[in-house]
Amino acid sequence: MNRFVVRSVMQGLINGRSSIINGQVCRAAVVGRGVQLSGQQNGMPFASVELRRMMSTASAPASMGKVPLATEEKKENPATEEQKAKDMVVSSYWGISRPKITREDGTEWPWNCFMPWESYKANTSIDLGKHHVPKNFVDKFAYRTVKILRVPTDIFFQRRYGCRAVMLETVAAVPGMVGGMMLHLKSLRRFQQSGGWIKALLEEAENERMHLMTMVELVQPKWYERLLVLTVQGVFFNAFFVLYMLSPKLAHRIVGYLEEEAIHSYTEYLKDIESGAIENVPAPAIAIDYWRLPKDATLKDVITVIRADEAHHRDVNHFASDIHFQGKELREAPAPLGYH
Amino acid sequence: MNRFVVRSVMQGLINGRSSIINGQVCRAAVVGRGVQLSGQQNGMPFASVELRRMMSTASAPASMGKVPLATEEKKENPATEEQKAKDMVVSSYWGISRPKITREDGTEWPWNCFMPWESYKANTSIDLGKHHVPKNFVDKFAYRTVKILRVPTDIFFQRRYGCRAVMLETVAAVPGMVGGMMLHLKSLRRFQQSGGWIKALLEEAENERMHLMTMVELVQPKWYERLLVLTVQGVFFNAFFVLYMLSPKLAHRIVGYLEEEAIHSYTEYLKDIESGAIENVPAPAIAIDYWRLPKDATLKDVITVIRADEAHHRDVNHFASDIHFQGKELREAPAPLGYH
Repeated sequence: MNRFVVRSVMQGLINGRSSIINGQVCRAAVVGRGVQLSGQQNGMPFASVELRRMMSTASAPASMGKVPLATEEKKENPATEEQKAKDMVVSSYWGISRPKITREDGTEWPWNCFMPWESYKANTSIDLGKHHVPKNFVDKFAYRTVKILRVPTDIFFQRRYGCRAVMLETVAAVPGMVGGMMLHLKSLRRFQQSGGWIKALLEEAENERMHLMTMVELVQPKWYERLLVLTVQGVFFNAFFVLYMLSPKLAHRIVGYLEEEAIHSYTEYLKDIESGAIENVPAPAIAIDYWRLPKDATLKDVITVIRADEAHHRDVNHFASDIHFQGKELREAPAPLGYH
Repeated sequence: MNRFVVRSVMQGLINGRSSIINGQVCRAAVVGRGVQLSGQQNGMPFASVELRRMMSTASAPASMGKVPLATEEKKENPATEEQKAKDMVVSSYWGISRPKITREDGTEWPWNCFMPWESYKANTSIDLGKHHVPKNFVDKFAYRTVKILRVPTDIFFQRRYGCRAVMLETVAAVPGMVGGMMLHLKSLRRFQQSGGWIKALLEEAENERMHLMTMVELVQPKWYERLLVLTVQGVFFNAFFVLYMLSPKLAHRIVGYLEEEAIHSYTEYLKDIESGAIENVPAPAIAIDYWRLPKDATLKDVITVIRADEAHHRDVNHFASDIHFQGKELREAPAPLGYH
């Protein structure tokens, strides 16, 4: 179901009117308490969205199936209210809540951090071998830094690729967020357009975080690994923040090379799965939904699509660095949006 | 055209194969150099997406209509290449570029920072009068802080509401980004789901930035106002960062109250437009596309939808603070996604 159709109809339902999209009334049939929307894409229904009827902003959310939060109007029995509040998720006194969303087969969409229309099929035929040959001092510095950092990493992880993935994705998800934020602040203070790059970098960060959310279903880090992750985040976040302020060119180049290393690591991971050294377990549900994998997908399929994502990030970051090398700002070249 | 249809077909075209979405081949007709996709939504074409045929990753992007960047293979005439590179936008050597996107009427989509499917109709019937009555020390501290900050702001801006909007939106777009980033980092280091709140807060930040991009089409800040914006950003970003680390509960409450003040200011802005004190100029193109306003929309329509957005942000932030007040984390309540 197209996102804005859902959005517009939701808004319409909140206000008790039907939604007009492009001059056409969106069909909404009331089914029990919910409202079922249907939409077609080339003759095939993509997803049914079942919306619970939104309460008006003034009344308590009884229809949400949750106990109302004690509001200014309802403080009759503070002790009971407090107890209930402790046990229940906070109700949406403010009149806002996520609608119930279902898959095509009618099962409830279980994820909050991504919606059906944000899932995608990865481009697994992307060129994995592309490498940016270092051409000048900045490139060489970036390349050597990454190669040097690989040494202690390899010593620590050896061939424990699952653990490697889980821990390094916590690092990989930082640059996109820092970069996106810096571009956002620059756009604000200079009153300038972004060229779509804020979204592109934030999309990269979110994609890396989804890699993490997937891998952590399979590999649980130990307490000392979590401690290491905390420490590394504290150091890396600040270091990358300063780096991006001083030289976004170098920052993007480093990330490009890091992604090249990630592709290599995931290739080794796949070799170990194929040889049987690592068990080829069924893919976690979140991965099947996020990458639109078949229901019987396995770890091998998951690593393949993750690797394809990393290849795309490599391209985006080397491209971003190339733009800087031309003496231009990112916003002068349209961002490669719509990929992951 | 549904976003992932565009994405999947783009990926398909890059690799010279047709795209399969939900088991159904997406129709793509080659039209000259471009590829025209058509999709229907309830029997009406939403948007045509015309894609330029993507070059293979190995060949130069001649079909992109841009001069190729000097690549490793093509360094024949460095001086000419450099000159061209200076004049031209960097070509997509890395094989990635934004496809050409058109509106329904065939005109090119001119924006990079948002796509047609990200435009929406604002909910202008949202309750503008809602106010969170301060209930405890944190609430009262937040409320008084905001009321105190209003004093110098009113003295500086007086009734110059256009200028006020332009300058204060540079501040308003910071909290969502800082909050989103902090939640992102927390999700990474704790290996926990986000409940959709990272996206909700980043969406808020982007929406405020779009308010700014709109207003700056109408009101250009003077040099000393730009200097003030720089200074305020430096102070506010750091202060809010620390605040969010120490007390996200207080941070969200403050933002909720700031949004209540914003609603009041925009109401005054509308009064001045209605009285004729401020000229009711035509709406900028970016606003017409972003909020899906009619072609003859005016400043009054723009301020009305901006105010509706602020009301929604008020609700989201007060809700977020309420969740914290329950002793819970944001991720325990599904985020109100899909709104602005």
